[in-house]
Amino acid sequence: MKLIRFGQVGETGTGVIIDDVKYDTSAFGEDYNEKFFETDGLARLEKFVRDNKDTLPKVNDNERLDSPVARPSKILCIGLNYADHAKETGAAVPPEPVIFMKSSTSLCGPNDNVIIPRNSVKTDWEVELAIVIGKKASYVEEAEAMDYVAGYVLHNDVSEREFQLERAGTWDKGKGCDTFAPLGPFLATKDEIADPDNLRLWLKVNGQTMQDGTTANFIFKLPYVISYVSQFMTLLPGDVISTGTPAGVGMGFSPSVYLKPGDVIELGIDGLGTSSQTCVAWSK
Amino acid sequence: MKLIRFGQVGETGTGVIIDDVKYDTSAFGEDYNEKFFETDGLARLEKFVRDNKDTLPKVNDNERLDSPVARPSKILCIGLNYADHAKETGAAVPPEPVIFMKSSTSLCGPNDNVIIPRNSVKTDWEVELAIVIGKKASYVEEAEAMDYVAGYVLHNDVSEREFQLERAGTWDKGKGCDTFAPLGPFLATKDEIADPDNLRLWLKVNGQTMQDGTTANFIFKLPYVISYVSQFMTLLPGDVISTGTPAGVGMGFSPSVYLKPGDVIELGIDGLGTSSQTCVAWSK
Repeated sequence: MKLIRFGQVGETGTGVIIDDVKYDTSAFGEDYNEKFFETDGLARLEKFVRDNKDTLPKVNDNERLDSPVARPSKILCIGLNYADHAKETGAAVPPEPVIFMKSSTSLCGPNDNVIIPRNSVKTDWEVELAIVIGKKASYVEEAEAMDYVAGYVLHNDVSEREFQLERAGTWDKGKGCDTFAPLGPFLATKDEIADPDNLRLWLKVNGQTMQDGTTANFIFKLPYVISYVSQFMTLLPGDVISTGTPAGVGMGFSPSVYLKPGDVIELGIDGLGTSSQTCVAWSK
Repeated sequence: MKLIRFGQVGETGTGVIIDDVKYDTSAFGEDYNEKFFETDGLARLEKFVRDNKDTLPKVNDNERLDSPVARPSKILCIGLNYADHAKETGAAVPPEPVIFMKSSTSLCGPNDNVIIPRNSVKTDWEVELAIVIGKKASYVEEAEAMDYVAGYVLHNDVSEREFQLERAGTWDKGKGCDTFAPLGPFLATKDEIADPDNLRLWLKVNGQTMQDGTTANFIFKLPYVISYVSQFMTLLPGDVISTGTPAGVGMGFSPSVYLKPGDVIELGIDGLGTSSQTCVAWSK
């Protein structure tokens, strides 16, 4: 199943994609949020769609897509999870997963504008495979970790490198700006992705390929990542874990290349669709 | 006004404290969450209490206190905001505020047990003054920053130092474990605290004073902190910003002293009451 959310900010409708057609499931009456995942919402939604498929209204193709999951309790990220990316940033391959957090206020629709923050000089891109958690997870064993996954989603982990690395403190400062987490176009349930450890993921800026990697190059694979993170905090249904980016970020070029107003980012992952964001300058 | 939340986990009632007596305001019908603060809930609650004071049920003194605010969109913290604490940890005084995040799942009641995580060897304490945000704040000027404050609350920013500093990655790994954010006993609205820059704050472990500081020693004062953080992400109503800890954490002793099961932590801030947590070992 492929889940979408759509409509203007604050007026989100929910839907599903079947055979490339978007259907409105707002009559199901639930947002795709913590409670939905916690109460076996995916199975209930699947039944609802099966029972109502012939009468579901279609979603207009011009509708804005929102993040396919509602604002989660947290967005966790794994840093430096591809050896080629660690190398390009000058960082050592970490001995265990690097965890940082993105403010949940950074969440936005997959094709929304990316706002370059005021005083930003180093806004950068990162195509990533993100996991959505399906049930509460605490001290989960690696062998059982995948049972806690609801599905997968495309994520651009937009990052301001000066804020992240040169402004005192942790990476969080450069990761959580508004619009820094375009998520979607859709949440693919776990069954849709046969092998999440073998997905091509790519990102272009103004039509030029910048990142072209594969999740086969993960340093820490998904079961390990989920188990690991769950040792440090309880994961709630609907929480997002973004699993790191392959080589090709702007910081890795010599000289570095950063985003400016008007730049168009396109990105995609096998089986998870594509998204595109236009960069705009911050304004009041 | 002093706001409380009480009852067992998942069955939270809301209340207020008037002249040291706890009253149940559950008939007001709203939790103290983002929507409450966003819709001028404090003023509406004040009117409700005024109109109903004579008939409000009292809260039994044996009731567990919960965090006085519902789970926020984020818990932000300022690191190293007292020069004496920076010195004891061996860190330089930062040139600008250090920001890190605590998982919102770390939130718990002010007198709940603190669970020492599995494999923890360095669980530590930090008494802190926390701010609760009253309205959406983005790129706020320092001169107007205090307009965005709903009130103040006592916070123990429990920290696992090995997870935080020695396990690769950002501080977040050692800050967001379950029960690592005992908050309360109550939220004091802004008018209750005449001078937040001149509050004594203290913490004892097993009766022995470990921290005894004053917010007069802030490196970065509250208006600056709020304005600064709002440059990097939008603050939502109900969000918590914890403003750093004075000297006297376990890591600062020579040799270091860390928490073990059975230890009792007590802490307090002028005008914001006291809290007490008993440390327990993690168990399945």
